[in-house]
Amino acid sequence: MSAPALERLLLQLEVDQFNAAYAAALDEKRFDDWPGFFLEDGRYTVQARENFDRGLPLALIALESRGMMKDRVYGVTQTIYHRPYYTRHVVGPAQVLAAQDGDPGGLVRAQAHYAVFRTRPGDASEVYNVGRYIDEMERTPDGLRLRSRLCVYDSEMVLNSLIYPI
Amino acid sequence: MSAPALERLLLQLEVDQFNAAYAAALDEKRFDDWPGFFLEDGRYTVQARENFDRGLPLALIALESRGMMKDRVYGVTQTIYHRPYYTRHVVGPAQVLAAQDGDPGGLVRAQAHYAVFRTRPGDASEVYNVGRYIDEMERTPDGLRLRSRLCVYDSEMVLNSLIYPI
Amino acid sequence: MSAPALERLLLQLEVDQFNAAYAAALDEKRFDDWPGFFLEDGRYTVQARENFDRGLPLALIALESRGMMKDRVYGVTQTIYHRPYYTRHVVGPAQVLAAQDGDPGGLVRAQAHYAVFRTRPGDASEVYNVGRYIDEMERTPDGLRLRSRLCVYDSEMVLNSLIYPI
Repeated sequence: MSAPALERLLLQLEVDQFNAAYAAALDEKRFDDWPGFFLEDGRYTVQARENFDRGLPLALIALESRGMMKDRVYGVTQTIYHRPYYTRHVVGPAQVLAAQDGDPGGLVRAQAHYAVFRTRPGDASEVYNVGRYIDEMERTPDGLRLRSRLCVYDSEMVLNSLIYPI
Repeated sequence: MSAPALERLLLQLEVDQFNAAYAAALDEKRFDDWPGFFLEDGRYTVQARENFDRGLPLALIALESRGMMKDRVYGVTQTIYHRPYYTRHVVGPAQVLAAQDGDPGGLVRAQAHYAVFRTRPGDASEVYNVGRYIDEMERTPDGLRLRSRLCVYDSEMVLNSLIYPI
Repeated sequence: MSAPALERLLLQLEVDQFNAAYAAALDEKRFDDWPGFFLEDGRYTVQARENFDRGLPLALIALESRGMMKDRVYGVTQTIYHRPYYTRHVVGPAQVLAAQDGDPGGLVRAQAHYAVFRTRPGDASEVYNVGRYIDEMERTPDGLRLRSRLCVYDSEMVLNSLIYPI
């Protein structure tokens, strides 16, 4: 049993646990924890698949630092008027595409398919937003942190009601 | 590569395989197998998120032993009149939150997000119940068993048609 | 920490990464890559649960070689007239049911629950097809390949619109 194989197993565990913790924070409405999943200058982008596939830059949301994420959280929780809803993320095991070998501080590239379900008070749960996370993660003393999370979603029909982070 | 890291990997494997086996038993309608996923005095609780978040005790279903689960299975399969349906569980990788280290017989705390889809004969599949499992598991000679599974679901719109276990 | 336990961990990793890569290929419309997930004489079958449960042979789609899969891809992408749509697979961690121990070239049996969501241009995403993969995989120099993938789906309501592989 070679050390690289074991490192690969531990990396997969780390990435999947990261995604599970991220999903839990959002679905439990611990929005203040959300920017902490990113590096200080991490990027969070939400983009329609149609634009992504064509290489077009237009994105629904593009935040380029923890500071912008905190502003967004403040807006979502304090100022934007919207009907409340619950979210539920179900995220498949990530595809870990590349890690810079031999460099324990190196970049991790991963991708995971997600489905987010929305439940409005008094309503049934419904499919809300499905797509994939395209991630670049860095190792820090506190564990993996996102240098970039790009959420590429399949449907454009959610635009005006996409309030909480994906 | 330290032994604790390897034990952590194996624990994750065990928890995820447990959840997959649990889902398969329910979706394949092997309901008689269902109580066996719990300890003899294990608890199975299904509670709306609204009550859970507020710390209210009211639960839709609360069973406190395998015996009660067997009764429930008997009711569901033999006596309750209901339109038949299929279920399909898709469960994400569990967040393993804590295991009592150094105690191989110790308690495992885990959480997993699930989506359950329902298919009635002749109908399309639909989102049925989404939420999370909040679990306490114990190691037994036969593998992990639930001391407690609390299913916290996001929507209250399923109440009168929630027949099979979640 | 015994070698069998470590081999089991690596096998699980391999199966889950295989499923993630398979899903990514389909959802990114890299259909030409799809037959490559199978052995040269691999089988791909899509069958309603109702028939599967009763042991009936009738299947919606039954392809018995890579050649037939390539024909199918050609038909789907070049000749069949259909409204375009995106798919999104969310696949849970696989249940690895059996691997022939001590035989590194041996057969791997696995099962995984999947949900496929469909998004038509301008529409919301919707539940499209849910079910399970029942797989037989073989080790090859290029990694795992499917000897057989049987997709057992819960609803028969998708028949005339099931164009892309599941």
